[in-house]
Amino acid sequence: MTTTSKHGALVQAEELKSFAIRAFEKVGVPPKHAEITADSMVLATLRGEGDHGSRLIAIWVHKIINGGTNPLTPLEVVQDKAAIGLLDAHNGIGAVAATYAMERAIAKAREHGIGWVGVRNSNSLGSAKYYAMLALPHKMVGIALTNGVPLVVPPGGLTARTGTNPFSIAVPAKSRPALVLDMATATIAYERLRIYAARGETIPKGWAINRDGAPVEDPREVSEDAFRKGGGLLPLGGYKGFGLSVMVNVLTGVFMGGAYMDGLSEFAPHNTPERDSFALAAISIEHFMPYEEFLERMDDFIRVTKDSKLLPDVDQIYLPGERGFQREQERRKNGIPLDWPTAEALRALASELAIPSIPGLS
Amino acid sequence: MTTTSKHGALVQAEELKSFAIRAFEKVGVPPKHAEITADSMVLATLRGEGDHGSRLIAIWVHKIINGGTNPLTPLEVVQDKAAIGLLDAHNGIGAVAATYAMERAIAKAREHGIGWVGVRNSNSLGSAKYYAMLALPHKMVGIALTNGVPLVVPPGGLTARTGTNPFSIAVPAKSRPALVLDMATATIAYERLRIYAARGETIPKGWAINRDGAPVEDPREVSEDAFRKGGGLLPLGGYKGFGLSVMVNVLTGVFMGGAYMDGLSEFAPHNTPERDSFALAAISIEHFMPYEEFLERMDDFIRVTKDSKLLPDVDQIYLPGERGFQREQERRKNGIPLDWPTAEALRALASELAIPSIPGLS
Repeated sequence: MTTTSKHGALVQAEELKSFAIRAFEKVGVPPKHAEITADSMVLATLRGEGDHGSRLIAIWVHKIINGGTNPLTPLEVVQDKAAIGLLDAHNGIGAVAATYAMERAIAKAREHGIGWVGVRNSNSLGSAKYYAMLALPHKMVGIALTNGVPLVVPPGGLTARTGTNPFSIAVPAKSRPALVLDMATATIAYERLRIYAARGETIPKGWAINRDGAPVEDPREVSEDAFRKGGGLLPLGGYKGFGLSVMVNVLTGVFMGGAYMDGLSEFAPHNTPERDSFALAAISIEHFMPYEEFLERMDDFIRVTKDSKLLPDVDQIYLPGERGFQREQERRKNGIPLDWPTAEALRALASELAIPSIPGLS
Repeated sequence: MTTTSKHGALVQAEELKSFAIRAFEKVGVPPKHAEITADSMVLATLRGEGDHGSRLIAIWVHKIINGGTNPLTPLEVVQDKAAIGLLDAHNGIGAVAATYAMERAIAKAREHGIGWVGVRNSNSLGSAKYYAMLALPHKMVGIALTNGVPLVVPPGGLTARTGTNPFSIAVPAKSRPALVLDMATATIAYERLRIYAARGETIPKGWAINRDGAPVEDPREVSEDAFRKGGGLLPLGGYKGFGLSVMVNVLTGVFMGGAYMDGLSEFAPHNTPERDSFALAAISIEHFMPYEEFLERMDDFIRVTKDSKLLPDVDQIYLPGERGFQREQERRKNGIPLDWPTAEALRALASELAIPSIPGLS
């Protein structure tokens, strides 16, 4: 059952997914690819990352309509040697390219213990955690890295020179949720700022500076366009986050023969390829120890980590991915709240594509 | 030529290295292992990281004398399958174990494109960058991770539950210094705090909290002993640095079948094994593209990154490892300044072991 609210909508995960599949198929995405893409977006949304999920559905569809993304994702195998590989996505859908690359990395890890597969010339992959988590059912650790447009200033600099360049690492456990780290190397993910902007909220000092080096408080001033004139997001923890961001770019764009820095584009304009690069890795646990033993070690590790004295008003220590797991359980049961701009965008998309909307949305 | 100063000493890199070799050989370390260990410590010191180099020489020697480290480093191959491997250091010297593990990772990367080799039951490796940089002459990217004793509180917690768990990534360039990221996942490396303590300086708020959650300003209050009663270092950037630290521990101690958290020890007491675990990885660039092409891409990437408008009083943008490279050049030419406690410890060590001291030191 779904219900509507004044400011947005409440939808069921499976219905959101079916809608996304309908939308992508309608604009020429092959059914298997539409399923992968929809699945990645719904998982991000279930885990509380709608800014990298539901919010992107209409954007990605419009990129296909406007020629900025090739709906067929014609993957080309550029390298395929033992434990490594490289795919050229030829401007296809990032979710599809990253999923196939991770599947290859998993197959390589099964044979060689580890697999490392890159992607270049792709559009954005959305939420990095989805691809890292693909390794989990295969008794493997998954790792996913992606570069992105320059939005982040180097320490001491006033020109955006590196991306928020997120990465994710996923590790299975036994009776506990899998550990899933998924972090931007800037103080804040760019897509998350768009939510502050949509809500008309201010952002804390220390997240971004303008072209004069002064703190930005209005998230609408944080944009790729504004940053062309100077300023940008600040790296996580100064030079350390900057160094991490640089290394993610080196291991993706530079290493995979793809674009980097000004060679990359944002979603807008919708007729422009983004040209992102990724690296996907899988490491086989069973090459090191029996899987069951590993799971028990993880459970113990998690138990001890959580067994900490707490600051006042803190209810528990959360491991990476634990809040996301809880949110996923809750949203699978009670539905996914969509904020007003996302709900509106999906209603308009249903109308534009002349496809059935989502129950609870219209 | 070497000179002394009132507060410390100025020594030449080669003489510091020869001294370290003499000291390690005197306490039973095989010549080849003594050479590796000394080389790792001198490189760290040249790069401005004497807290992970020259300062540790006397400590590591005393650990051997007191039975806390096996001078023979009897490495056992636990796993060796295609692209992955695992060594048990049987309480040997971390520098030796990590070097051999990286050499195996390099050999595996030459064959499979990537190599990933773990170490367990080792003593500390000192400076992570040394091992990542071993991959550079082989036209590879190098990666090194290590866990360490719990010194860092989780966000919201008052019990040290994860280590400063540093990692390093090294990438070659053509006419520019190789990029070398080497970062602790806490706001500050623990060894660096020891320098503040030795100098009687206070530390900034935001680096550590005491057992009540209040900021610590006296670095002498930051110790493994004190943290047993509560408090600890703060993770880099809150939950992100905590997540990174957790993942480094998972990919080393948990994954490699080694110790983690309270199973680990610090250098002191000197008769106790530290039981650190490492992961060393190498990725072959030539499996992806011609090496020369990669180097030119790196130079371009570095050039564009540095080409940023600057804040007032900033002279240039530094890439990871660039300051360390400059310091290394300068110190190779002009000598290495040793602070007073380190100089004193080395003088005492020469006397204790009855070996020739370093010119400029005594």
